[in-house]
Amino acid sequence: MLLRRADVVDGALKFLDAEGLDGLTMRKLGAALNVQGGALYRHFPNKAALLHAMADKLVEGVGDPLPDVSWRDQIYMLGDRFRTALLAHRDGARLVGGLDRTLGGTNTITAGDLAVNVLCGAGLPPAQAGWLAFALFYYVLGHTIEEQAQVNPLVGDYSRSRKARLATDVSPQYAEALDSLTSSDPAERFTYGLNTFIEGVASQIPPTRPVPATR
Amino acid sequence: MLLRRADVVDGALKFLDAEGLDGLTMRKLGAALNVQGGALYRHFPNKAALLHAMADKLVEGVGDPLPDVSWRDQIYMLGDRFRTALLAHRDGARLVGGLDRTLGGTNTITAGDLAVNVLCGAGLPPAQAGWLAFALFYYVLGHTIEEQAQVNPLVGDYSRSRKARLATDVSPQYAEALDSLTSSDPAERFTYGLNTFIEGVASQIPPTRPVPATR
Repeated sequence: MLLRRADVVDGALKFLDAEGLDGLTMRKLGAALNVQGGALYRHFPNKAALLHAMADKLVEGVGDPLPDVSWRDQIYMLGDRFRTALLAHRDGARLVGGLDRTLGGTNTITAGDLAVNVLCGAGLPPAQAGWLAFALFYYVLGHTIEEQAQVNPLVGDYSRSRKARLATDVSPQYAEALDSLTSSDPAERFTYGLNTFIEGVASQIPPTRPVPATR
Repeated sequence: MLLRRADVVDGALKFLDAEGLDGLTMRKLGAALNVQGGALYRHFPNKAALLHAMADKLVEGVGDPLPDVSWRDQIYMLGDRFRTALLAHRDGARLVGGLDRTLGGTNTITAGDLAVNVLCGAGLPPAQAGWLAFALFYYVLGHTIEEQAQVNPLVGDYSRSRKARLATDVSPQYAEALDSLTSSDPAERFTYGLNTFIEGVASQIPPTRPVPATR
């Protein structure tokens, strides 16, 4: 059977859902796709190349055109799309986080380009827009990595066994904060953090000169 | 030889620097420390427990008392300490990122407690302080994961080969942004992003009532 590049990427994402990122090797993937390992190398020179293609497939659609709303809402939507994309596959955030973000496949570039253009439209120069677009992305990445780490049953079991002895060690403020963190919806915390960061971005936009009134 | 818990953690961090997170197994670590694998399990019931202990050792000192400066400067210092700690060991950010942050060892708790108390001191209620302390941490985590990913030679080689065909695909704004991203110091970008986020946090602090003048 002739295996197309897109088939390998789709198969690799299915494999990721089943076995996780740590279980993914070219040999095991080849076996799962019923081809010799060598057949994969026809499309991808090495595992890193395959991981890049998987990561790029993961963010497909993130850079789709945005509705004509405020730049704040547009950036929020972009961040939310990124989170949704990363959470859609097991270890998705770890997969995307381990790669070089300044270069990448078509979907990655389209999403980055869109984010930078939204921030430029808001009044930031391109260099600052790039730095802050990536800074916002780092927040999304860190948040989703932690979200996906929480569902790791091994880590979860270990953590629960520590819970009993935690309360005595911390300040009342921190105990209340932890209580709120563990009982809250990650999506709600994500939104609050992202909107807070966006307010910071707003503080970096140089004031515009007043438009002269038309006579 | 009697192997103490702290010896295992120190040895595991040395192993991490040499072999990376993907190469770390209890069996290989036992061999590197010249003990049977079972000797490690006397201190750590499973690999997740060891990883937690390593991550906690990594952030030792992050929660040390802060100088008496503004809350903005204190939060900046905390974020900078975190980044420095994560970058101090190979795969440090990936190690810390894969674990449950709401619970953890002494150093992790001390750092989180300090961050929350700084934000409470700035005027945030504990729950919001907790959400934003973790949001800031997610930014630091995402940034350092990407910083450490860039030095992966495999990924680097692959990326360079794509550089030639990138320029044609993107808007002039994005080309300029990428140019600035790839030519800039990650520490400088980290500082800019963190301070921008801190301005967003400042926007969340409820206005204080004016203090009545003493008669």
